[in-house]
Amino acid sequence: MGLKKKIATKGSTGKRPARPEDTYFVIMAGGRGERFWPLSTEFSPKPFIGLIGQKTFIELTVERARRIVPIERIFVVLGKEHVPVARTCLPGLPQGNFIVEPVGRDTAPCVALAASIVKAKDPDAVMVILPSDHFVPDEKKFTALIKKAIKVARGRNDLITIGITPDRPETGYGYIKRGKPVTLPHGPDCFEVDRYVEKPNITRARRYIREGGFYWNAGIFVWRAAVLLDTLRLHMPKMHEGIMEFQKAAGSRRLKKADAIFAGLEKVSIDYGLMEKAKNVLVVPATFSWDDVGTFTALRRVMPTDKDGNVVMGNAVVLDTSTSVIISGDKPIAVLGVSDIVIVASDNGILICDASKVQEVRRVTRILAEKNHKK
Amino acid sequence: MGLKKKIATKGSTGKRPARPEDTYFVIMAGGRGERFWPLSTEFSPKPFIGLIGQKTFIELTVERARRIVPIERIFVVLGKEHVPVARTCLPGLPQGNFIVEPVGRDTAPCVALAASIVKAKDPDAVMVILPSDHFVPDEKKFTALIKKAIKVARGRNDLITIGITPDRPETGYGYIKRGKPVTLPHGPDCFEVDRYVEKPNITRARRYIREGGFYWNAGIFVWRAAVLLDTLRLHMPKMHEGIMEFQKAAGSRRLKKADAIFAGLEKVSIDYGLMEKAKNVLVVPATFSWDDVGTFTALRRVMPTDKDGNVVMGNAVVLDTSTSVIISGDKPIAVLGVSDIVIVASDNGILICDASKVQEVRRVTRILAEKNHKK
Repeated sequence: MGLKKKIATKGSTGKRPARPEDTYFVIMAGGRGERFWPLSTEFSPKPFIGLIGQKTFIELTVERARRIVPIERIFVVLGKEHVPVARTCLPGLPQGNFIVEPVGRDTAPCVALAASIVKAKDPDAVMVILPSDHFVPDEKKFTALIKKAIKVARGRNDLITIGITPDRPETGYGYIKRGKPVTLPHGPDCFEVDRYVEKPNITRARRYIREGGFYWNAGIFVWRAAVLLDTLRLHMPKMHEGIMEFQKAAGSRRLKKADAIFAGLEKVSIDYGLMEKAKNVLVVPATFSWDDVGTFTALRRVMPTDKDGNVVMGNAVVLDTSTSVIISGDKPIAVLGVSDIVIVASDNGILICDASKVQEVRRVTRILAEKNHKK
Repeated sequence: MGLKKKIATKGSTGKRPARPEDTYFVIMAGGRGERFWPLSTEFSPKPFIGLIGQKTFIELTVERARRIVPIERIFVVLGKEHVPVARTCLPGLPQGNFIVEPVGRDTAPCVALAASIVKAKDPDAVMVILPSDHFVPDEKKFTALIKKAIKVARGRNDLITIGITPDRPETGYGYIKRGKPVTLPHGPDCFEVDRYVEKPNITRARRYIREGGFYWNAGIFVWRAAVLLDTLRLHMPKMHEGIMEFQKAAGSRRLKKADAIFAGLEKVSIDYGLMEKAKNVLVVPATFSWDDVGTFTALRRVMPTDKDGNVVMGNAVVLDTSTSVIISGDKPIAVLGVSDIVIVASDNGILICDASKVQEVRRVTRILAEKNHKK
């Protein structure tokens, strides 16, 4: 466990007293609006749309975080083009709690930046990283598990990832294979990580389900900011250095320099860049249900359906139609005699897409963007 | 030919000199907007929409008539709820040339009323009846044939119907079985009518095509107004009497009485009520191509298609899609991975319908009408 020594943080090892005010949430709201057109757009991507009920994904995520910490300790990381829509969605979030990335460089720089900001607030801070656009129906179970994970993170020099127990052989997610169990008195189930697995093909995905011990990587992490930064320095020293330089430049208001530094950081995910390399990673299996609602067809899993398996939202007349997703804007939609179709109308346009093609909606948005560009 | 004697008109038998100013066109624009929702509505049914190019069906129909007669001799029969949209579509039509039906009672009262009005203008008038919402791409051939049919009608005491030579076993139209040929020097092909056939099932329709000698009944008629009224008096004496009373009441401005008389007329089509019974009916086969564009899928026959057989009108991105009809409103439509689907968007709403179900669009409009009614 030599590595662990290197990443121990200044003056903080072993058990630590419960100190809820040391906990921060960082909600990641980068990303583009391509897969949810016409509800989402370049300027209002998925976190900022309300697919499920009236509230936007990011509002619901902030509400989950507020069950554990006050709003002052919730940060939202986002691109500057999304600041206006984010302010509209989250009027209660203090202005200083928006962490604005100069450019999107995937999740590693984003997480590292957030960790450096959180650590500056409190060198012993525990931080919880949440994606901004997932669906967690049971908030109580979520709260309970995250609180347990926070305690684990507070007491150890480990990076904790929350693993989702798969209920289907999904090929759209990365998997985490668990290793030896880690015994935690009064703690949640917890395992060492045997390995990370890239998005598998369907044969492999089926095998993972059959074998057990595999979890979906949902991008939910809990750790001390200092542990993250130490692990980063060990495995991604350039990234670590870049973030420190960025913070120095930003702190002294040399904004152009700061932007240039950030733009020069490696564009890589925290999973690929760090988690797969680090030895101090634990997986805590989620006890709450979860869906990333990655496409319109995911709504068939998470929303109530009619007797023919349709999800119907808004003003629609639906006849002789099955297993379709129908979302209307302000005008009525009439659907007659189709099945397995996604139909979505908004002020931006209308999508009609076979359910098997929802992953390809971005092809459409790219063509539309080109058309607009030519205009 | 005893019947023919009875229907001879006052002082007019046998050959008549060519007198083009004796010809009137009557364009029938009754009917509802159910099958073309969301383009058509209760207040703007099919004749008043522009499915093909920029012009509305009724505009195109009036233009065809104007190739033969001046606008003053073109009448449009319509319901009063459609007068506003008709005036917008036909700004050049004299106000007095709109024949407004108090209520829709199918085509027999409508034709009879138009005939009585035309006969009042000119006792020897020839009238051409045209539906207002059909598609006739070759106007020259149409003009030539109608002119010939007018000459035939002028010279005989017969009701002439234009028969469309079927190019497919259509089950949506009535058929006319031709009888013995009628020899007309310098005239068009012409036949006695053996019988009228109601909309057949597909087996029969296929047999008609195989056997030949069957024509589609397109609702295009040419006759002297006096001959029509005499034939009407013979076979539908009550209808004849009712129309005469209606005209008397309307002529003396007793409008409430006139409305009541019209509302009391039998609701029946001219085909079923008169043409099938009359012995003085001839069929002249059309030499022009024709389509009634009865549903959205008919556009696949009459409009240019892309390489995958799609009809695409307006602002649309269409990928991996075949044999579909896509009509956009002002917002972009994106279509991905479907086939044989009708997609139509307008200010009134959005329709997504399997091509096999286009005949059932009225189910949708009825439900929407109920919903609106409840509001």
